[in-house]
Amino acid sequence: MNGLETVQVSEPEDGNSEKTKYSFQSTLLKKSIELSNSLEHQPSGITSGAVKAGIKYPDVYDFTVVKLSKRGPVAGVFTKNRCSSAAVKIDREHLEDGYAQGLAVISKNANVFTPTEREDTEAVLAAVSKEIGIEKRDLMISCTGVIGVPLPVEKVLKAVPELKGTLKPGLTDEVSRAILTTDKGPKVVSVEFEKVKLAGMAKGAGMIEPNMATMLVYFFTNLNLPAAELQQILNWSVERTFNSISVDSDTSTSDTVLLFSSGEVEPTPERISDFRSALSAASLKLARDIVAQAEGASKLIQATVKGASSTLHAKQVAKLIINSPLLKTAIFGADPNWGRIVMAIGKPGQEQMSQIDSSRIKIVIAGITMFEYGHAIPLELKKVSDLIKNRKKIDILVELGEGEGEWTAWGCDLTYEYVKENAEYTT
Amino acid sequence: MNGLETVQVSEPEDGNSEKTKYSFQSTLLKKSIELSNSLEHQPSGITSGAVKAGIKYPDVYDFTVVKLSKRGPVAGVFTKNRCSSAAVKIDREHLEDGYAQGLAVISKNANVFTPTEREDTEAVLAAVSKEIGIEKRDLMISCTGVIGVPLPVEKVLKAVPELKGTLKPGLTDEVSRAILTTDKGPKVVSVEFEKVKLAGMAKGAGMIEPNMATMLVYFFTNLNLPAAELQQILNWSVERTFNSISVDSDTSTSDTVLLFSSGEVEPTPERISDFRSALSAASLKLARDIVAQAEGASKLIQATVKGASSTLHAKQVAKLIINSPLLKTAIFGADPNWGRIVMAIGKPGQEQMSQIDSSRIKIVIAGITMFEYGHAIPLELKKVSDLIKNRKKIDILVELGEGEGEWTAWGCDLTYEYVKENAEYTT
Repeated sequence: MNGLETVQVSEPEDGNSEKTKYSFQSTLLKKSIELSNSLEHQPSGITSGAVKAGIKYPDVYDFTVVKLSKRGPVAGVFTKNRCSSAAVKIDREHLEDGYAQGLAVISKNANVFTPTEREDTEAVLAAVSKEIGIEKRDLMISCTGVIGVPLPVEKVLKAVPELKGTLKPGLTDEVSRAILTTDKGPKVVSVEFEKVKLAGMAKGAGMIEPNMATMLVYFFTNLNLPAAELQQILNWSVERTFNSISVDSDTSTSDTVLLFSSGEVEPTPERISDFRSALSAASLKLARDIVAQAEGASKLIQATVKGASSTLHAKQVAKLIINSPLLKTAIFGADPNWGRIVMAIGKPGQEQMSQIDSSRIKIVIAGITMFEYGHAIPLELKKVSDLIKNRKKIDILVELGEGEGEWTAWGCDLTYEYVKENAEYTT
Repeated sequence: MNGLETVQVSEPEDGNSEKTKYSFQSTLLKKSIELSNSLEHQPSGITSGAVKAGIKYPDVYDFTVVKLSKRGPVAGVFTKNRCSSAAVKIDREHLEDGYAQGLAVISKNANVFTPTEREDTEAVLAAVSKEIGIEKRDLMISCTGVIGVPLPVEKVLKAVPELKGTLKPGLTDEVSRAILTTDKGPKVVSVEFEKVKLAGMAKGAGMIEPNMATMLVYFFTNLNLPAAELQQILNWSVERTFNSISVDSDTSTSDTVLLFSSGEVEPTPERISDFRSALSAASLKLARDIVAQAEGASKLIQATVKGASSTLHAKQVAKLIINSPLLKTAIFGADPNWGRIVMAIGKPGQEQMSQIDSSRIKIVIAGITMFEYGHAIPLELKKVSDLIKNRKKIDILVELGEGEGEWTAWGCDLTYEYVKENAEYTT
């Protein structure tokens, strides 16, 4: 488990395939495992359901619950936003004992910056936990949607008995859709190896609603690991996947990743090692689904930085690349303008601040070397532009020649559609 | 000169006036001084000229020179980009002895990341300094335009004799236009008080060219201050003005602010104090011209943060506000979506990282209080939206209730035009 390790998935070069094959190498066994783009491999003992509580719209699923048959270890990662929601604050408290048994999700309302956000969230938790028969402290909760609009808590409470009635065995496609706001579609993943099962679903991001969108991710496994160990593996995976994507550099107040375990399968060294690989690959799959589906995005940008002075430094530079509005608009315009990458990799705020030596730099866009060790490569820019135009995934590779640090980050282009989605609709 | 002091200018509320009156209070004398939107108040002993060297286009002014009649103190502030241009590196060297006598500016080519950038820049400096009769080390130089395209140095060298022939007394409007690329228009300022004169001109920013735009600012005064003192005053002013604006968070490789003195007028305590106020007000005027004229921008956003835990913290939060793509698109769409301000002021990377207490927060948009101490104010959003629609300058005020720190930063909205300017045109 060294810090330089990154997650790799195999996939078609042009990123155009509908059915990208997300196989990955297990760390220990060096075998290849394949992810499924469905919820087929899920732990047993899960029931779930969803209702239309009428939180913002009359006829839309907006209230969801997932229940495990017994308490199990749980791990979570939450937004670093200083205005985090009451739901995030409560989840952090519920996480303290390392156990949970269920999850409630309210969509279409973030329940943030309202006078009663804490009381409203507590009231929903109390009603749901009582109705489905689990301890309140074992129920996690997320709210996602508009900031600053009070939650219509009476409607939510009224819907609780109906919600219980919808509970069906398993994590259903219906539930993976109910946690969405106006996402293009559900984002799910599952995988199985040595009796270990892992299933996950994601919501967001991208400025899908005219208000704050958020990222919600839920994983369920049957591998029986203590919460502390689950947390460590989750942190490692999140840092390399969800924390390495950006649609527009705006951090939501509700971002949440939770990993529940039903505790059915006992850990072995092989299972633990493969689980770490599987969770990372599954996280990467969902993270990239989020970026690729972000409204307004037409191309996925994958930026890999090699030869940075450290892993942290590589991550900083990779994120400078995917977050540069100038580079994002250039990719949208299919413009192989590597000068904008030069600008981006030099931006202030890096761990390493000495001047960059162009004779050590290599810049590759979509597999074409544009700049190498002090010299621009003479190219027919029209051909490179056509190549970018025809791909849905644009790989950018930058070698810094300063050390061994390496990182990959994922973003998307900046388009008219992004401005439209976030400007034309009003509150 | 305490750190909390900020620059104030008086102006019409709606920001719609063509002739904004940039008067300001002098620190010491508490008198009001007015800035001119022309170069009328300039030090004597300056000559300047410009030619069409054909650097990128055949019929455009692209090569400029300004000469002082004798060496004088000089101060400079440069880009923090790690890929700074040879011109920036050379200027830093020329600044070491604290004196300069002239300035050459090449526009339409950044002369960055080319194999011969240093030699080319040195060759131009040698030819110009010889031709106009000043020491090479007393000549400053800036290059601005496309990154990665070799400078057509032969064309530039061939134009040097003609450039000398164009030298005329004073800083001319022609010169203030020749340093531009495709800016909407020139950005100039001048002011006079107690025989002290200060004149300045700016180029950029905004993604005016389809390639890297840069910010260049040149000030000329007759106040005879040692270089170290000029530098201190310049740093103070730049931090509060140019370093507090952002069009798109992308940092150019060529950003330069230079302050030349002809050394004609001896300093008195009053003059020095007023000079600091004047330079700050003049810098603010040019900084805001840059943001307001940025291509793609339809509205200027002025974000003031009060009650932060420190001045640095206030600056961080003010910049988070003006750099949020979500808020920038909301302002473009005239959407008074204060939830996006909540998101922005909570973003990670602040000096203060504890959770924000909504009961201490106040948010005001365009003079209308939207949120106050835990409660959203019930408003007709349509009316607030119309107000935003009809203004060119949108003031945002946020009170954090955490301390005494205060800062103002300026940005612009994110529009279709921004995406168009930076995506549709290709290299």
